[in-house]
Amino acid sequence: MLDPTSPIPLYYQLKTNLLDEILQGKWMVGELLPSENELAEAYQVSRATVRRALAELQREGRIATRKGKGSIVAQPKMEQDLLRFYSLARSFSKGPHQVSSRTLHKDKTTADPVVARHLQIGSTAPVVIITRLRYVDGEPIMLETSHLPSSICPGLEQEIHIEALYDHLEARYGIYVSRAEEFLQAVAATPEEAAHLGIPRGMPVFLVERVSYTPEDKPIEFRHSVVRGDRFRYKVELH
Amino acid sequence: MLDPTSPIPLYYQLKTNLLDEILQGKWMVGELLPSENELAEAYQVSRATVRRALAELQREGRIATRKGKGSIVAQPKMEQDLLRFYSLARSFSKGPHQVSSRTLHKDKTTADPVVARHLQIGSTAPVVIITRLRYVDGEPIMLETSHLPSSICPGLEQEIHIEALYDHLEARYGIYVSRAEEFLQAVAATPEEAAHLGIPRGMPVFLVERVSYTPEDKPIEFRHSVVRGDRFRYKVELH
Repeated sequence: MLDPTSPIPLYYQLKTNLLDEILQGKWMVGELLPSENELAEAYQVSRATVRRALAELQREGRIATRKGKGSIVAQPKMEQDLLRFYSLARSFSKGPHQVSSRTLHKDKTTADPVVARHLQIGSTAPVVIITRLRYVDGEPIMLETSHLPSSICPGLEQEIHIEALYDHLEARYGIYVSRAEEFLQAVAATPEEAAHLGIPRGMPVFLVERVSYTPEDKPIEFRHSVVRGDRFRYKVELH
Repeated sequence: MLDPTSPIPLYYQLKTNLLDEILQGKWMVGELLPSENELAEAYQVSRATVRRALAELQREGRIATRKGKGSIVAQPKMEQDLLRFYSLARSFSKGPHQVSSRTLHKDKTTADPVVARHLQIGSTAPVVIITRLRYVDGEPIMLETSHLPSSICPGLEQEIHIEALYDHLEARYGIYVSRAEEFLQAVAATPEEAAHLGIPRGMPVFLVERVSYTPEDKPIEFRHSVVRGDRFRYKVELH
């Protein structure tokens, strides 16, 4: 099935063959793939070639390795359309997924200089800080910290629990978010982030920084989100 | 300057203080920051606190460590607007940056099943594959592999060098790209990717998969790009 005379490396041919079979549903999510030995035998390639093909499928989140057992087909990554939705709650609550969150920390305090810069407020102005761990289908996916000028949302820090922040801002304070600027980075998870998200330290994550604006173009939120790279991908339509 | 009574951890206060000073231009790009000892002394915090603040600044690409010397202010990450431009050449050639590329591989071969699926062509249809290492200001930034159906661009694989692929498709074949779908992942660099990009193995990179379409909605390119996470960030405007 593989072509040793092709300029395309064998490991890459094997990888795309396996990926095609996964996409076709040859194995179910959670099902074991054939072992390295079985694949090497079936495709007449070395175990090193098999290992490299599997390593690439793993880093792209198509398979997961189970110690001592082998590789299983992974849950497809969750996908969020970067442009259509910018609220996790709004984005996922319409689909088959269950979105929930846990508030790790909330407080009213003094803005730090970087937050003050983003929110265009004085460097000692009071801000509300809310850190939430957000789950999809019970699995921790994002660690988000929002900073808002306290002047626009007095008492927000006393809210017991906020699931959908933008809905809450609308309902309680009459504040609408009309646009946002977002910056995406690919970085390694810190030990603390990794612990919250249940992933190994240093694992690649998206670091997303967002400033949200009202229709009057006043910045009302600076948000710092860490999003699991192994479970999430972004989609963008370019025109 | 730091507030030990604040609920905000000291390392985080120190981090945002240093970041603010970097953004204000207190030190130039490439300039050494004060040593860990000097910072610990100046801010009256432990070296562990200083180290954690520096580690966060490093992973966000604000500083870089030079072995045996200390930390220097890093070049700001390059920024690409995800929506306004989707050609690196077009995006950066208008600014102060010098964009160039080196063709690592080009060939006419048979589509692999995954590429065939993206391009909506038969699984053995001929495709042109071009792998380019793309540089900004002489630094390798992206490793890109484009796959195009050979039928729409006969002879493309014989082109000596292609700098701006979309410009070339327009000029030589009258093919225009009118929209694209892009998927962004945060993954660890493979050893081969790391070697090409001059980064450590396993470093976080963006893995960007793109399918480009003509105005008639025919897919004409499947592109697989690996983009350095330490040198690049994406910007998105959400409305």
